Amino acid sequence: MIEVASLRLQGHARRTPLLSSPFLDEIAGRKVFIKAECLQHTGSFKFRGAWSAVTALPDDVRGVIAFSSGNHAQGVAYAAGLRGLNAVIIMPHDAPAIKIANTRALGAEVVLYDRASEDRDALGAALAAERGLSLIQPFDHPQVIAGQGTTGLEIAQQAAEHGVTSAQVLVCCGGGGLTSGIALALKRHAPDMQVRPVEPEGFDDVTKSLTSGQVVTHALRSGLCDAIVTPAPGKLTWPVLKRLCGPGLVVSDAQALAAMALAFERLKLVVEPGGAVALAAALFLPEQITGDSVIVTVSGGNVDRAVFQRALAGGTGDDARATA
Amino acid sequence: MIEVASLRLQGHARRTPLLSSPFLDEIAGRKVFIKAECLQHTGSFKFRGAWSAVTALPDDVRGVIAFSSGNHAQGVAYAAGLRGLNAVIIMPHDAPAIKIANTRALGAEVVLYDRASEDRDALGAALAAERGLSLIQPFDHPQVIAGQGTTGLEIAQQAAEHGVTSAQVLVCCGGGGLTSGIALALKRHAPDMQVRPVEPEGFDDVTKSLTSGQVVTHALRSGLCDAIVTPAPGKLTWPVLKRLCGPGLVVSDAQALAAMALAFERLKLVVEPGGAVALAAALFLPEQITGDSVIVTVSGGNVDRAVFQRALAGGTGDDARATA
Repeated sequence: MIEVASLRLQGHARRTPLLSSPFLDEIAGRKVFIKAECLQHTGSFKFRGAWSAVTALPDDVRGVIAFSSGNHAQGVAYAAGLRGLNAVIIMPHDAPAIKIANTRALGAEVVLYDRASEDRDALGAALAAERGLSLIQPFDHPQVIAGQGTTGLEIAQQAAEHGVTSAQVLVCCGGGGLTSGIALALKRHAPDMQVRPVEPEGFDDVTKSLTSGQVVTHALRSGLCDAIVTPAPGKLTWPVLKRLCGPGLVVSDAQALAAMALAFERLKLVVEPGGAVALAAALFLPEQITGDSVIVTVSGGNVDRAVFQRALAGGTGDDARATA
Repeated sequence: MIEVASLRLQGHARRTPLLSSPFLDEIAGRKVFIKAECLQHTGSFKFRGAWSAVTALPDDVRGVIAFSSGNHAQGVAYAAGLRGLNAVIIMPHDAPAIKIANTRALGAEVVLYDRASEDRDALGAALAAERGLSLIQPFDHPQVIAGQGTTGLEIAQQAAEHGVTSAQVLVCCGGGGLTSGIALALKRHAPDMQVRPVEPEGFDDVTKSLTSGQVVTHALRSGLCDAIVTPAPGKLTWPVLKRLCGPGLVVSDAQALAAMALAFERLKLVVEPGGAVALAAALFLPEQITGDSVIVTVSGGNVDRAVFQRALAGGTGDDARATA
């Protein structure tokens, strides 16, 4: 499915670059390769899964519906628009303003809900039934996972161009769509690579689940790394994560912010907090990683100016390393 | 020479992506393609020319020397280091701190001079003679122009992949190395494209030279767009600029800052002021441009945090358009 999705994505999704910097290599103590998915359409890898899903729908579909903290929303809105489909997006009312505004500007109808008091799944199911819309889940959807997995195909090819066929691959992990997709792709195309999910402190449900061998759920709440604060791995993603991935890595918000500042300085990339956790792990948790090279995903760049300015106002290493 | 340089650059320089955003298209009133050279090694296109030049030197060279406001310095320092050569870099004492620090960190010896009172050419010539170093000029060097021209080869190929073979190509212009290199490459590989130099207000020597038909020189001084505040087109670049390029476009510092904020928001790119002028022209001077599509270079991303924060604190369009 990933390979077929890759054919549908060709000429539509971007083949994002695999970047590096001698300055980051020095901090990490090994070569660091950065898969820059913040440069993907709509500013995150989510466009891949969205395009994979909307192009797999039958021609007579009446429209799509999605719920998302923001990046999946923009991916689905843009992908649906390109295919000429209506899109309804259910978003938490406390999602970053830029993500809500962008989703509307991309042509979608946005429905806001309260993370604490409302059940987004029930709300989505009701709206889908009422209007005959096809639901595109953010990670528990086979075609979405297949689309995210195309990132893994590119990582395998691009790393090989640099002579790297064996490395740990650190992936920013929320519900596990990107992580499981990449793991499935690498299993066939770069079997000596090992995928390791990276999560923010307090939202390390996947890391704990991998340690205990069964799904651990944490309370729903918001956090700095808004893109990846899902409470538990998905029903479809968990078996893949359990079989192919781990162990998990956990970084602090301060480390994510310091990684954002270093991405600004050394890669010229705008990275959002949730998109920076894998880079933060490579830079600030080197003793938990093995190998001469490490590959990290930078999964998104949709960050409010205030949060980015907070990252720029902070340190770029010593503080973050001290907290490690 | 450009095609041969391209072979030497293969696997060493990055093939940077050609990006776009529906939000930027809407502001510009036409499709805008952005050649993201801020993602090149050392954060600017200058690595191309530097690599082209150092790989064209004879094997018994004793080292290289360069003078630069910063980006050429980093490009030469990194390229020389990769080839195992010593590099001496002569930089203005008021160059951005990050550029001086990076040049030193890349292994070069930095010699600072005063733009107003000292002659960098004489200083460079004396040091070169004394130590037997090969001088790599920032733009008046055939192999440097050839290296920068590889950007044009990629623009021709990447634009064609989007179905674009005829468009104006806006290039951030200092001494004219990138502009003339791209123009030479496109003359053969995309003859229906027209290269237009873009400069900051008060530093529009190339624009005025093209209008009058002969070289116009402005006083040496520093400015926000530090990468491109050269006083006049070069001896080698001017005949190419005159024959193939124009008319020039001129943007304000406020427009450059607004373009930086939009590149942050819509492209997830960190762009320096001098690297943002071509994008600023596409966005804020649409009536001076023709065609359904326009291609712009984003030539560098080496910007101090304070200047970037100034861009983020400003507007992203209405103000800048009001000053246009």
